[in-house]
Amino acid sequence: MIDSRHIEALGQLLGGKGLLTAPADMASYETGARYDKGRAAFVARPASTQEASATVAYCVRNGIALVPQSGNTGLVSGSTPDASGSQGILSLDRLTAVFDLDRVNRTVTAGAGLRLSDVNQRLEQAGLFFPIDLGADPRLGGMIATNTGGSRFLRYGDVRRNTLGLTVVLADEAGTVLELGSGLRKNNTGVDWKQLFIGTSGAFGIVTECVLNLEPLPRQTATAFLVPSSPDRVPDLLVAMEEALGSYLSAFEGMSRNAVSAALAHVPALRNPFQGGHVPDFVILAEICRTSPPRDGEQPLDAVLEEVLAGLWEREDTPLADAFIGPPHEMWALRHGLSEGVKHSGRLIAFDLSFRRGDIMRFLDHMKAEMPRRFENVTICDFGHIGDGGVHFNLVVPADDPRLADAGFEGALRAWVFQIAVEDFGGSYSAEHAIGRKNQVFYDRHTPDEIRRLAAGLKAITSPGPLGSVTF
Amino acid sequence: MIDSRHIEALGQLLGGKGLLTAPADMASYETGARYDKGRAAFVARPASTQEASATVAYCVRNGIALVPQSGNTGLVSGSTPDASGSQGILSLDRLTAVFDLDRVNRTVTAGAGLRLSDVNQRLEQAGLFFPIDLGADPRLGGMIATNTGGSRFLRYGDVRRNTLGLTVVLADEAGTVLELGSGLRKNNTGVDWKQLFIGTSGAFGIVTECVLNLEPLPRQTATAFLVPSSPDRVPDLLVAMEEALGSYLSAFEGMSRNAVSAALAHVPALRNPFQGGHVPDFVILAEICRTSPPRDGEQPLDAVLEEVLAGLWEREDTPLADAFIGPPHEMWALRHGLSEGVKHSGRLIAFDLSFRRGDIMRFLDHMKAEMPRRFENVTICDFGHIGDGGVHFNLVVPADDPRLADAGFEGALRAWVFQIAVEDFGGSYSAEHAIGRKNQVFYDRHTPDEIRRLAAGLKAITSPGPLGSVTF
Repeated sequence: MIDSRHIEALGQLLGGKGLLTAPADMASYETGARYDKGRAAFVARPASTQEASATVAYCVRNGIALVPQSGNTGLVSGSTPDASGSQGILSLDRLTAVFDLDRVNRTVTAGAGLRLSDVNQRLEQAGLFFPIDLGADPRLGGMIATNTGGSRFLRYGDVRRNTLGLTVVLADEAGTVLELGSGLRKNNTGVDWKQLFIGTSGAFGIVTECVLNLEPLPRQTATAFLVPSSPDRVPDLLVAMEEALGSYLSAFEGMSRNAVSAALAHVPALRNPFQGGHVPDFVILAEICRTSPPRDGEQPLDAVLEEVLAGLWEREDTPLADAFIGPPHEMWALRHGLSEGVKHSGRLIAFDLSFRRGDIMRFLDHMKAEMPRRFENVTICDFGHIGDGGVHFNLVVPADDPRLADAGFEGALRAWVFQIAVEDFGGSYSAEHAIGRKNQVFYDRHTPDEIRRLAAGLKAITSPGPLGSVTF
Repeated sequence: MIDSRHIEALGQLLGGKGLLTAPADMASYETGARYDKGRAAFVARPASTQEASATVAYCVRNGIALVPQSGNTGLVSGSTPDASGSQGILSLDRLTAVFDLDRVNRTVTAGAGLRLSDVNQRLEQAGLFFPIDLGADPRLGGMIATNTGGSRFLRYGDVRRNTLGLTVVLADEAGTVLELGSGLRKNNTGVDWKQLFIGTSGAFGIVTECVLNLEPLPRQTATAFLVPSSPDRVPDLLVAMEEALGSYLSAFEGMSRNAVSAALAHVPALRNPFQGGHVPDFVILAEICRTSPPRDGEQPLDAVLEEVLAGLWEREDTPLADAFIGPPHEMWALRHGLSEGVKHSGRLIAFDLSFRRGDIMRFLDHMKAEMPRRFENVTICDFGHIGDGGVHFNLVVPADDPRLADAGFEGALRAWVFQIAVEDFGGSYSAEHAIGRKNQVFYDRHTPDEIRRLAAGLKAITSPGPLGSVTF
């Protein structure tokens, strides 16, 4: 338990709404989006950068560990405290006051506590959006701390690409505030310090405000399901689509039969779009879009897609077995239903991997062959972002499987998958979920000594205080 | 002078072609692209990462300062030694052996000594390019060390956005080699160390190899000159073009009358495209492009541009005074001739500034009013990348102006311009040229103490040896 004088002091810094200590008030902050449940000493909810700075300074001076929490939608135990009850949560959820659209600069300065959906709703009128497309609805600070990618990465890139400035509080005795960039798109006058706080799980500092690049909203969209003639032709299909469509192509998502079948079985709103109801081995959802409004004389986007697919189809060595254009909302509904479907198929053990684009199908093929030999009765329900190399490699174990009672089972499975992904295929064990407490052991295992030494040194000169769920 | 035993030892490490010491051999390495001329103790030309590592290790252990040099096309004295004769040059010009295209991943792994033109020529057959469009023809390592932007930044971003991996040699006693990334587009497993070496003038390590994102080559292009009804309507024009064209828009370049007139006067191949030969106050070169090949049924790109301009023209509050579509190569020839033209108009004092996009025209307006009051007979010949906030703010002084003999004149002019750009307009004193020896004094002046302390700390834990032309 934390000393009551600290609670009193923090309460004075933060005011009534700013500090929670009652178990009922803290429960939702202590519970992660999936799996984890910790215990917090308190939840601090600063409403300004200054309050965040004062809170961090107080905690560092008194050796109180803080875990920053944003939308708490992450999947790697990055935003919840451990079970000790000694860590405080610093929630961003009241950092919502700042919202300053600069129409000409195509940027917004926003509080780190604003939700993605909220930001995009407020931008809609200006015809702009923050172009990170996710199933979850995180707050901005957490998106920055995990460097999320999402389904339109292929066209818009990740959070890193779209972050022009940050305000950050360091975990030092002064709670130093750094103002890093202010909406300039070009500025090469030294170390680009904001990069340090992007994708590092909040261990190097707490983001309180950000300046984000905005993009024109897509105005016209067309989608198709593409069935490759065999899974190993998926890379050819991707190259062919990019060659024919250039930057029209805004998504190229892969879905395995197991994942699609799970979605169709467990998400009632979905309709089976495949001929005779036969779900193919592997399906691609391809999307093309224009960000310009429709104009007379312009070829409709469906026709563009149809022509390109017809061209592919006529090739002697066509990588296509089937292809059909359909309504975008329906096609995306299936894609977005995969996660839900897989969750209801048994106990889900999820991996967020990435590879060079040409290695994904080879990896999946390898795992399909090896899994039954190494772990029986584990179903691979993969889907993901082929266009940017990301794979949500989901494993499903029957809910009543006795192995689930064994604490070592999941760890052994995880270690085995990561070993193959990272060491044999040169991939990443965390494409867009960052590290969190859950991946700490894999950071320790797969990070070269020299990089770990540098990261520890960098932590010591920026935020020496105990901050975040990851030890660098 | 450097001890001859060091020359001998380095010669043994690097072999015959690998070390230059004769004044005639070193002259071109000692001379910058503009202005500066230094004196080198030697020129080391490693042909591999291993040789670069051995060279750096030897120099660090023996206290020999190294200045990395890439294409030596920079404008801020970043790649040349000072006048002391005690610094060695480490040239990247033999690091050209590696060139490994990964077609499916849309990346190339390339030696840092390859020239941009060379890389793009070798990629052309695959329909791809490294999308940084510059007047100069630098080598890759220097592009990374300065984080160049160029004329298509609006569409493709800077070098940072397009760098997926780096191999770097640190200036420590071991000449530690870091392999940072290998072509993954998504990887959030800790600090993204490669960011440290992008845009920091080579002071934190020497880039020997890189993995670059490639983009499909533009297949269709249309360009127009747009004359705003007044310079302060340029932001409206930019917003209107982005609204109508979305991501079709690939360049939005601003050219002042003085810059255009200088080009027309001094570059014989150029034709005056303006009615009656009257060059307007300010002109925009707008480019739109498609990366997909032309298809039947598709509206030609010239027609798209024409329709959009007609729509703008009909608005009651139109920001246009005139607009005409013309052949892209001719329009770009004028744009690319500006630099040459300005150089021949007198003694050029060049600034590479950037602002929030909405602040550029306000800044230019302010300077037009203030310049004659502060510095007489200095002509502003600005042009630049309005679409991304960059301005090549060029000042021309008559070649025979007696003030040019005064060493303090240029410094005072520079300090005054930077003061206004950075402090009053929140801009950057180096948009895409980085720091170099030339901007050291402005780094010291305009960088907050806390950031300077952090940068010095970071330098100490990564590359403590004397490396590069900038002191962080």
